[in-house]
Amino acid sequence: MPTIVVLGGTGPEGFGLALRWVRSGETVIIGSRDAARAREAATKIQAAVGSNAKVSGEENGAACAAADLLVLAIPFEAHAALLKHIKPAIRPGSIVIDATVPLAASVGGRATRTLGVWQGSAAQQTAELVPQGVSVVAASHNTSAEVLNSDASVDCDVIVCSDDTTATQTVRTLATKIPGVRAIDGGKLENARILEQITALLIGLNIRHKGHSGIRITGLPEKAYEVL
Amino acid sequence: MPTIVVLGGTGPEGFGLALRWVRSGETVIIGSRDAARAREAATKIQAAVGSNAKVSGEENGAACAAADLLVLAIPFEAHAALLKHIKPAIRPGSIVIDATVPLAASVGGRATRTLGVWQGSAAQQTAELVPQGVSVVAASHNTSAEVLNSDASVDCDVIVCSDDTTATQTVRTLATKIPGVRAIDGGKLENARILEQITALLIGLNIRHKGHSGIRITGLPEKAYEVL
Repeated sequence: MPTIVVLGGTGPEGFGLALRWVRSGETVIIGSRDAARAREAATKIQAAVGSNAKVSGEENGAACAAADLLVLAIPFEAHAALLKHIKPAIRPGSIVIDATVPLAASVGGRATRTLGVWQGSAAQQTAELVPQGVSVVAASHNTSAEVLNSDASVDCDVIVCSDDTTATQTVRTLATKIPGVRAIDGGKLENARILEQITALLIGLNIRHKGHSGIRITGLPEKAYEVL
Repeated sequence: MPTIVVLGGTGPEGFGLALRWVRSGETVIIGSRDAARAREAATKIQAAVGSNAKVSGEENGAACAAADLLVLAIPFEAHAALLKHIKPAIRPGSIVIDATVPLAASVGGRATRTLGVWQGSAAQQTAELVPQGVSVVAASHNTSAEVLNSDASVDCDVIVCSDDTTATQTVRTLATKIPGVRAIDGGKLENARILEQITALLIGLNIRHKGHSGIRITGLPEKAYEVL
């Protein structure tokens, strides 16, 4: 895989994804507003994974300019501002993987509720804000940050939605680098709105039942889960 | 369990639920606009289950007047009209279990998309249309009609949402009468909107991958799945 940039890699979901990808041997750049915090997160991952770990930290814009597989794992209140900030640094042909969930908590509401996003979903907002020639893929909303940050197998399917079918396949391959994850093509980017909603449901289940929930899709033929 | 009325019991989802409950020994009344079609569906279930089957068919209003556990498994375009029609027949203390999904197909759109419902979800629309003292519970949106109508174990969790916690428990018990189903308390009725959206996602996965999909929730403690 090419180098993966995780924007929001100092937050729990982004850090967990970065940790898992570094652990599987991928090269990861942690992005943050603050380069020092990004480097600190990279050092932590280095300490957890060992001396073979290929991980570094950069300010968000510098991180984007250095690679073309960009993961957004940021709070929704930072979403549009970050995309506007990094837009000049996003290289043509890049893939932006959006795991952002527009939780009502972003505006002081509950983490079990979502905001209505004019474009339909956070991922569709992203599609409006990236430069032409950049593909947006929605994925990894439903993987528990707590589980990602543990050593446990991730008992969760990642549903991948994009209007660029080649990018969908790349992201399915990336998702399955995490032990336990199966990655399913979920169709067009517009379906991201449902993936985002599911996270709010899972957060509610976690609070109610004191768990770290995920989802599995049943009843599909084996080849729906096969990554070529 | 008390007698279960399945409104829309002549359609694939309602018929499948009725079949499964009759097979598990429950008493079911199939409701339909047309009493003759309701009786015909009941006869089919009788033939499938055998002479011990406790199933009959009635016109919707008559069916509601005869029992107080009412399941709505109807197309969204018939939802409000049916509720207005049966309102005088719904007995105080009844539980209305709503499995309706507001698919865009109801107004000529796609079955992979949903309509925005002013109240938030079809189930919340139901809550507005039932008489006072009637509890609304959202459940069973995500169980595949094809699987329900087969002999297979249903590889799907039913998430149950209601503002009446006693009704939630009753419906969890009812849901788990179907082999394979685990029933999880999903919190308040307002969360129904996410359950309804998930069905649109699953329909999209079924079309794309030629399956009969369902969902499982992972990562919760065992007691989240226990029905007392």
